[in-house]
Amino acid sequence: MLGRRGLDIVRSTWCSSWASPSCQLKREVSTKILSRRATIRDARQLDSGSRVAVGGWVKSVRKHKSVSFVNVNDGSCLGELQITLPSEETGEAAAQTLGAKLSDITVGSSVFVEGELREVPGGKHKRLELHPSALEVLGKCDTQRYPLQKKYHSLEFLRENLHLRARTNTFGAVTRVRNALGQGLHSYFQENDFLHLHSPILTSNDCEGAGELFRIAKIGGKDDEFFGTPTYLTVSGQLHAEMYACALSKVYTFGPTFRAENSNTTRHLAEFWMVEPEMAFAGLDECIASAQGAIQRSVAHALDSCAEDIAFFNKNYDKQITERLERVVKKDFARLTYTEAIEVLQKAMSDGKGKVSFEKKPEWGIDLQTEHERFLAETYVGGPVFVTDYPADIKAFYMRKNAPDSQDRETVAGMDLLVPKIGELVGGSVREERFEVLEKKMRQLRLIPEEDLDEEAIASAGGDLDWYLDLRRFGSVPHAGWGLGFERLVLFATGMDNIRDVIPLPRFPGQCKH
Amino acid sequence: MLGRRGLDIVRSTWCSSWASPSCQLKREVSTKILSRRATIRDARQLDSGSRVAVGGWVKSVRKHKSVSFVNVNDGSCLGELQITLPSEETGEAAAQTLGAKLSDITVGSSVFVEGELREVPGGKHKRLELHPSALEVLGKCDTQRYPLQKKYHSLEFLRENLHLRARTNTFGAVTRVRNALGQGLHSYFQENDFLHLHSPILTSNDCEGAGELFRIAKIGGKDDEFFGTPTYLTVSGQLHAEMYACALSKVYTFGPTFRAENSNTTRHLAEFWMVEPEMAFAGLDECIASAQGAIQRSVAHALDSCAEDIAFFNKNYDKQITERLERVVKKDFARLTYTEAIEVLQKAMSDGKGKVSFEKKPEWGIDLQTEHERFLAETYVGGPVFVTDYPADIKAFYMRKNAPDSQDRETVAGMDLLVPKIGELVGGSVREERFEVLEKKMRQLRLIPEEDLDEEAIASAGGDLDWYLDLRRFGSVPHAGWGLGFERLVLFATGMDNIRDVIPLPRFPGQCKH
Repeated sequence: MLGRRGLDIVRSTWCSSWASPSCQLKREVSTKILSRRATIRDARQLDSGSRVAVGGWVKSVRKHKSVSFVNVNDGSCLGELQITLPSEETGEAAAQTLGAKLSDITVGSSVFVEGELREVPGGKHKRLELHPSALEVLGKCDTQRYPLQKKYHSLEFLRENLHLRARTNTFGAVTRVRNALGQGLHSYFQENDFLHLHSPILTSNDCEGAGELFRIAKIGGKDDEFFGTPTYLTVSGQLHAEMYACALSKVYTFGPTFRAENSNTTRHLAEFWMVEPEMAFAGLDECIASAQGAIQRSVAHALDSCAEDIAFFNKNYDKQITERLERVVKKDFARLTYTEAIEVLQKAMSDGKGKVSFEKKPEWGIDLQTEHERFLAETYVGGPVFVTDYPADIKAFYMRKNAPDSQDRETVAGMDLLVPKIGELVGGSVREERFEVLEKKMRQLRLIPEEDLDEEAIASAGGDLDWYLDLRRFGSVPHAGWGLGFERLVLFATGMDNIRDVIPLPRFPGQCKH
Repeated sequence: MLGRRGLDIVRSTWCSSWASPSCQLKREVSTKILSRRATIRDARQLDSGSRVAVGGWVKSVRKHKSVSFVNVNDGSCLGELQITLPSEETGEAAAQTLGAKLSDITVGSSVFVEGELREVPGGKHKRLELHPSALEVLGKCDTQRYPLQKKYHSLEFLRENLHLRARTNTFGAVTRVRNALGQGLHSYFQENDFLHLHSPILTSNDCEGAGELFRIAKIGGKDDEFFGTPTYLTVSGQLHAEMYACALSKVYTFGPTFRAENSNTTRHLAEFWMVEPEMAFAGLDECIASAQGAIQRSVAHALDSCAEDIAFFNKNYDKQITERLERVVKKDFARLTYTEAIEVLQKAMSDGKGKVSFEKKPEWGIDLQTEHERFLAETYVGGPVFVTDYPADIKAFYMRKNAPDSQDRETVAGMDLLVPKIGELVGGSVREERFEVLEKKMRQLRLIPEEDLDEEAIASAGGDLDWYLDLRRFGSVPHAGWGLGFERLVLFATGMDNIRDVIPLPRFPGQCKH
């Protein structure tokens, strides 16, 4: 808040919240400095000689003979600010003058410090340290019980301490990069005439197969009396996005979606965030162009605003991440048809003379597996690649049918974006906009009820999707869209391996603590 | 997409999706023009003489003797673009030359038009019309069955046709203003060092009273075996935001929240969006300053980017909306303590000599009702007003206790922002950061388990919140935050009256269609 609109717009002086007699000292210190707090990120940009107040958590304490160093971080950046304190021998008296007890300044404790920034002598690069004129320990930290005492913790251990892991370098960096990726996506959509659509979480429609849906419990034993219909957590906002795109041309959703899939893997979550743009007056080219544009904008924003964090991931998690991300931003993504992709895989096997093999044999008609997807992105292309025009039989009912190919095989105007390390990052398609074609397909799949079905049967068949046909009955337009699993983008941009480590509070079978 | 990164970054020419023989004509027209589409908002800014292609839905057709006018909208703005067609007598032949049948151009049909923009002769203000050189009806509209045939529809009628209502002026405008308000909030937070936190929807914690929670159904009859614990839809992301603020200083959530409250009112939804920032190293002043700052930024962005829409609401829904919003952006919000507010209300009654009355008598200790809140905002202040320092007994357990007042009454460092027409728009507080005070309060309320409780009892008492106490055990910091009901902000900014009309797909008792 510092230096921006800040407190000058509010009339009163310090709030009454510190007024209890038991924290009189706190009140005085806080009154002076809380409202003048600078982020550590900002403080590190200031000139030597500047006076500044910062708050944060102690990351390390190094006591030397003539001086003690306390490193503090506040989450505004990866870097820490070094507080330089008087020597240990004379430290206690000096600390008391500053307003604190030296022994309270331990790893994990929170402090508020005011002082002067001075250049660290002798360094190659300019680095500032803070010489305090006032210091308060806001919250002590029981060193015996604090789980994050040690400098190093395994990711597994931190998953057991979800409520504290954001205090580590890794999870601070993940949170900042995740934030930047999300904002980069918003920027792309807003600059390209998309409206953000808050599609609903609760829905009576199920278009992806009833087995993987979370259902809302009946309340008080009565049969779904709250909404009057079986109600689920959404698996995708796409159909709702189509509803709005067929009125306002370009929209995007960005919200949580759910799968009750019993998958205990590093790639699946029961609750995850999806980005689903939908465009009217668009075909597969626009679909592909917007997916590339949005991802490039998102990654560029992360590289730009989180350079220090990306360098951290590059050093500690994936030595190629910076280079890979920079190439993503600069280079067009490649493009193959599914038919070409199958040929590439088959040729790789026959040319590879046993060195290239796949568990599932690549044949026209199969759904590409992660092993195929990664080979195409990592080995064949060496970067992101759009695979288009998949066999109709392996894709969803709403994808638009192409004309049969030269061998009379049926394909759809769909695309998947495959990227190194992850496999599928985006899936999209042109939507079937022809009423008769869509209606026939939906009847075959029993997605719209036969005329003699009762309401319960309609509900169990996935709800009544007649409204979805209305979008084609009344002023239908060619339209297309795609979905991005946001956590997969965070994995891609950080080089982290486990999807549970790139969402604040992961939910998966057996885990819904907090 | 036009004129931006657009299609030049994609290698191939037009996609295969139009290649089926049955739509050969479409393919040719679309190949020519789809990728050069301009939004109608952009087209209206061009110079007379410009060539342009637009797509959209027909809003009206007026056939005159010498000429026909077709008004088209694409959702990029409220305004329509007038297509000027040859006269009715000769129209059919001319339309066929353009590639369409004149009789197919009906209200609700979708069209794609390419042509030259020319100034409408004789108008006072510059207004452009499009003289087409190519026109295609992409999707016909069955005029007998289309529910939105007529020009005017009641809001009630449109609530019965949720999947089509975005095609009306009102709901297009609501969607654009809602988008702008959301982006304005993001801008405020991003510019002020907040990180967007995707707090979870599924949670085992319940801190607001079990009666109003949606619970996830047991799967396959087994007892909550998916997560191993009773699981609910979140009522607030606050506790999770505190978890991250107590590590990274400033975060905000912006996501859906849920109440299984059986309220059939114009002010309540079962699913609604909340914005919940949380700040470490902050007190009530920062809480108030950030709420004012965020709302001002949000409303300013809506005024700036949706001027035409706001003017529409001002004309059709609330004659004071423009003036009210402009004042909100410019003027500081007022501030009263709860104790002062009660005095104001009591004085208003005694001075009013019977003209001012309230259903609930204003006395120190009561929770303010909407009638009180609106009186304070509308009559006393004439604008937004923060009311602070409420009685501790009527507020949540996590709010920080003030020192007892001069009459030895207990209050908390909390605030509500009251605004005209709506009442409470924001609620926030400083959080109790003192371990002992918080733990005692939580034990009293049975929010943390007695030591002899088993897991089931803990779950039914609202889950285990010991992690929340850990935030105070280890490096506790003064922190504060607030929550904004986003739909209430949309109501406030549009002048609409019913909360069901400001969210894309409202969910309330008996309604979860689509």
